[in-house]
Amino acid sequence: MILLDGKAAAQKILDGLKEQAAALSKRPRLAIVVVGKDPVVDTFISQKKKAADGIGVDMRVYPFPTEITTNELRKRIAEIVHEKRNTGVIIQLPLPPHINKQYILNAIPAEKDPDVLSGRAIGNFAVGKSPVMPPVAGAIQKLFEEYKIDYRAKSIAIVGAGALVGRPVALWLMTEGVGFTLITENTAYPEAALREADIVISGIGKPRSITEDQIKKGAIIIDAGTSESAGEIVGDVDADSVSAKASVLTPVPGGIGPLTVAILFKNLMTLAQA
Amino acid sequence: MILLDGKAAAQKILDGLKEQAAALSKRPRLAIVVVGKDPVVDTFISQKKKAADGIGVDMRVYPFPTEITTNELRKRIAEIVHEKRNTGVIIQLPLPPHINKQYILNAIPAEKDPDVLSGRAIGNFAVGKSPVMPPVAGAIQKLFEEYKIDYRAKSIAIVGAGALVGRPVALWLMTEGVGFTLITENTAYPEAALREADIVISGIGKPRSITEDQIKKGAIIIDAGTSESAGEIVGDVDADSVSAKASVLTPVPGGIGPLTVAILFKNLMTLAQA
Repeated sequence: MILLDGKAAAQKILDGLKEQAAALSKRPRLAIVVVGKDPVVDTFISQKKKAADGIGVDMRVYPFPTEITTNELRKRIAEIVHEKRNTGVIIQLPLPPHINKQYILNAIPAEKDPDVLSGRAIGNFAVGKSPVMPPVAGAIQKLFEEYKIDYRAKSIAIVGAGALVGRPVALWLMTEGVGFTLITENTAYPEAALREADIVISGIGKPRSITEDQIKKGAIIIDAGTSESAGEIVGDVDADSVSAKASVLTPVPGGIGPLTVAILFKNLMTLAQA
Repeated sequence: MILLDGKAAAQKILDGLKEQAAALSKRPRLAIVVVGKDPVVDTFISQKKKAADGIGVDMRVYPFPTEITTNELRKRIAEIVHEKRNTGVIIQLPLPPHINKQYILNAIPAEKDPDVLSGRAIGNFAVGKSPVMPPVAGAIQKLFEEYKIDYRAKSIAIVGAGALVGRPVALWLMTEGVGFTLITENTAYPEAALREADIVISGIGKPRSITEDQIKKGAIIIDAGTSESAGEIVGDVDADSVSAKASVLTPVPGGIGPLTVAILFKNLMTLAQA
């Protein structure tokens, strides 16, 4: 089994961005809205900071207390969005459960939304009018390109219909006219759908839940799930279990994660150049 | 095999809308932008006119010559959209091939888009923030409700990833967390995917191309395809062929078509009331 190196592919992108950033008259800035405190979130933010420093892009974290209301947060984001120095604004997820998540995400106009999570940005992407791709979809596309995986002629299963992985990946494939099977908790025969797939793209956030007996011999497994298990970041796939049967696997950490961060900055650069 | 009566279900919706229209202080108006001339398009428009007259809604057709440029058409649509009397504006498809279709569709703001085809309206729908559903998706949902078809626990195949049927139906199912298989021209094993489906939703516009040998015994077949064959409007499904094997079929004409028109006017009413 081949382990795909997401870090190396991410570094290539970041190296290219460094050159582009140097050519701009003004340093782009990524604003990150963070509500509450969480050690896992801190890890994600420090990964982004490292990437930003590496390419010469500014990053500013806007912290808010867990108790902030949806309306107050939306007002504050409107200010952050209007600040000229902020090239792009992202909302660190998850938000506390009392916050109306999509209402908050919709406060970001498409031209400042490198995460492609506002309704406007998703709509642009769905109709083929977006200059940027949802980061996870962009990461997977890049990986397929890098490793010359011809996904168009394959049977693809997407596991999970979440806003961060399943839905944007499904939208991407639809805009390319590529078929797939979307597996959710409601799926009638999930085992059969998974076992027939040449390529599995998973984003459910259930630690190590996909095992050897569930996949096809020689399958390409893209693990875009991240969750915490005993203080570690783990993926949806049980790597030890699938390693004898899959032909290709993206590790967690070091697979889709770093590539997604790189695509986020690629998007920021695209917005800065627009 | 049961033939689902789309006309009857549509009439129920239109009857309800008639009452709602009577309660409004101002008659809603649907504006239809038509480019060029086509007898099939004339049929579609007269069906809409009949529905509009029945519920007491105004309809105004704005005709343009086939040769109009994308820029000129977009300018004219901006005027039509700004006209206060127009509650909703739709673009009659297909447009001539020289017109940039999505750019034209994007000229309609979400609050005047009962067809849910602008990027903005699709984005709102994709993130669960739309008061209206794409008409074909709404039509299929209504039919499932009317005939008590529990689609959530079934294996669903969507045939085609077009902007009018496949994509909006896929988006609808995703927002409900319902899995499905999307079959396109690129699909690796289309026959297997189709033959395993409990419910087939087709929108490819290939006359009578789905036949008995391609479906599962007892399947529910939703034919949302319309094309012209020898001067007749026909569906994607060969009804004579599948009738011995399917349990349920929507006829063409008289199935999804009239229900889609009814949902279009339901959307118009929702926009009028907003």
